[in-house]
Amino acid sequence: MSNAAKGPFSGLLVLDLTRVLAGPYAALMLAELGARVIKIEPPEGDDARRYGPFITGDNGAAKSGYFMSINRGKESIALDLKNNEDRRIFEALLVRADVLIENYRGGTMEKLGYGWDVLKDKHPRLIYAAVSGFGHTGPYAARPAYDMVVQAMGGIMSLTGHPGGPPTRVGTSVGDLTAALFGTVGIASALYDREKTGRGQKVDVGMLDCQVAILENAIARYVATGEVPGPMGARHPSIAPFAAFKTRHDYIVIAAGNDALFARVAKVLGHDEWPRDARFATNFARIEHLDALHAEMEAALAARSSKKWLALLEAEGVPCAPINDIAAVMADPQVHARNMIVTAADPDVGPVRMQGNPIKLSAYDDPSTRPPTPGLDGDRAAILKELELENPLPAEALSSRSEL
Amino acid sequence: MSNAAKGPFSGLLVLDLTRVLAGPYAALMLAELGARVIKIEPPEGDDARRYGPFITGDNGAAKSGYFMSINRGKESIALDLKNNEDRRIFEALLVRADVLIENYRGGTMEKLGYGWDVLKDKHPRLIYAAVSGFGHTGPYAARPAYDMVVQAMGGIMSLTGHPGGPPTRVGTSVGDLTAALFGTVGIASALYDREKTGRGQKVDVGMLDCQVAILENAIARYVATGEVPGPMGARHPSIAPFAAFKTRHDYIVIAAGNDALFARVAKVLGHDEWPRDARFATNFARIEHLDALHAEMEAALAARSSKKWLALLEAEGVPCAPINDIAAVMADPQVHARNMIVTAADPDVGPVRMQGNPIKLSAYDDPSTRPPTPGLDGDRAAILKELELENPLPAEALSSRSEL
Repeated sequence: MSNAAKGPFSGLLVLDLTRVLAGPYAALMLAELGARVIKIEPPEGDDARRYGPFITGDNGAAKSGYFMSINRGKESIALDLKNNEDRRIFEALLVRADVLIENYRGGTMEKLGYGWDVLKDKHPRLIYAAVSGFGHTGPYAARPAYDMVVQAMGGIMSLTGHPGGPPTRVGTSVGDLTAALFGTVGIASALYDREKTGRGQKVDVGMLDCQVAILENAIARYVATGEVPGPMGARHPSIAPFAAFKTRHDYIVIAAGNDALFARVAKVLGHDEWPRDARFATNFARIEHLDALHAEMEAALAARSSKKWLALLEAEGVPCAPINDIAAVMADPQVHARNMIVTAADPDVGPVRMQGNPIKLSAYDDPSTRPPTPGLDGDRAAILKELELENPLPAEALSSRSEL
Repeated sequence: MSNAAKGPFSGLLVLDLTRVLAGPYAALMLAELGARVIKIEPPEGDDARRYGPFITGDNGAAKSGYFMSINRGKESIALDLKNNEDRRIFEALLVRADVLIENYRGGTMEKLGYGWDVLKDKHPRLIYAAVSGFGHTGPYAARPAYDMVVQAMGGIMSLTGHPGGPPTRVGTSVGDLTAALFGTVGIASALYDREKTGRGQKVDVGMLDCQVAILENAIARYVATGEVPGPMGARHPSIAPFAAFKTRHDYIVIAAGNDALFARVAKVLGHDEWPRDARFATNFARIEHLDALHAEMEAALAARSSKKWLALLEAEGVPCAPINDIAAVMADPQVHARNMIVTAADPDVGPVRMQGNPIKLSAYDDPSTRPPTPGLDGDRAAILKELELENPLPAEALSSRSEL
């Protein structure tokens, strides 16, 4: 019995052999787009089931909010791929699968006897997606990786933070998440391709590669000038004023990308003379005198609260923004209007709020609730029945598998 | 004559009505996967053609390396969508198009007479993708947005930086890039759906929504505990040692996620006694005594260079990484082995290095070169001939269109 939503990928079966974040998030995207996703976990479960903080139900059950948010709407079966009984189940699932996603380090699937070279002959329509730290080729192919490792190696940490300051990690796991997204694009393109050619293929995505792919203008700056870009705090490299500015109590972003917008900023801040000041008359001059510009702006901005300044700037049509914390994001009316906070009902802990799906498709609904997150091995009996395999575990063994 | 590479989307025609980064990057992904992409620019060209730094050829022509890196392999035609002649060309292209991507603010396409309500009846197989700041619904739908605005509003800036420090922008435009990636997933899923249903649909992606979708464990932490997560510098919230550490001259990342790895770190750093020290014996204890742990580790790490420590840690199998700057990333052997730095030959400035495609597909080649970036309106004559429309501009008018 499938939890799957209706969507472009309805009718497809995805086997999710992944753990923690990058792979599970790619499989989540496919589930959000309608695919049926069976999460194949090791007997001890995905490590992320043990990542706090936990939400505790009235019955004392503690569930990882983090795990739920990236595994809702999937089914779960626990399989030990070194055990022959479990391999038989896995192989029966492979026969029916459209997509297999794994995020082991390079070489692991080959050791298990499920490398692409084997699978492609047995399952020519299968799309095999590997999301790994470094991809399946090259000198680092067999190395493990964590998000912070690829953030460090891939250059984004060298661009994030303040000049002269200590290293700064991007505050969300962009190493994992971008690999999940590129991986999902690859899988979706391979599914389209299969409609034309009848054949599956391997999609090989490395987290480090994905970091290189999002370096954006930093590569162009280095290639054009030979200068190595560094961190720039919270400002734009070549447009001013376009930065975070301190107000009375905290900070706001003001993004006035041209002279007309700067004149409006000057007016709101009570300094109509600024556009006639030679230091500030053009964007080029403002960049040349950036410290003076920021100092004068912050002297004026100190007079009022962020909320007040944002209202005044918005009234003049100046692009600006509060620096929202998570509580403010989750209370934002646009975030709610776009259904970006959804709830999944958990049988133990009740409804849990989590992120929605930012891909809004006109042909499909975007419900405000999601199906629950499976307990470890929670769908074993139903899956085995569907596969017409007898349950290889006696009932007492099954009931002793504890849910984390 | 198409520049398109071979790939899953070969044979598809994409109209790229977008500017700067989010939309152009989505169209680039489709081009990398084989689609033919025609970039429809305003008469003055995509603003990004004027974003430096520029690469200057022997003939004095200056080209934006940034623009090239996200528009290589596309064709270009300049159209003024308020001009009737140009609207006729655009409508002839729409008849042949599979995908239309635009990144105007909400409401602009409706004003031009090309809103989805109109297009869906005329072109029922068309996939219409809108990548905007806030999406096409909700109270902020008509607002413009910049990357830094959605980074601020979407919460990622509240998680990035050092506790008590000033606001910190992620050093690459993740606001734009994640919207490009979610948009590409949406387009690819809609293309698959069209194979089943015969119908196109609208894909509506807002940059703010995408920021919410990647907040990852920050939402789970807030929902579970009510505490608002803040920035954490360059360390993991609940695992130690898992952070950036100062060595003799600069910093490295050490990611020792369990006690066995910590024992190896202790050995390499000459402190075999650490795992027996009550303050450091378990991960829980290490998090409780994090300042002491980091201070003792950095005292030891000060003795050698990053390069030396990385070699010693790697030899013991401890996950670790240099904090690479862009020059180091572009020299990394894995980055080269994975073909993540490709070159596109420009007729004026010669071969230019830029980021490759991280989606490696077994059924298609991943060449080390890419087709050039089009000059503004550079494909007009060929496109009009293909459409069997006469050229509505006299030759002298055409030749006066200057390439930026």
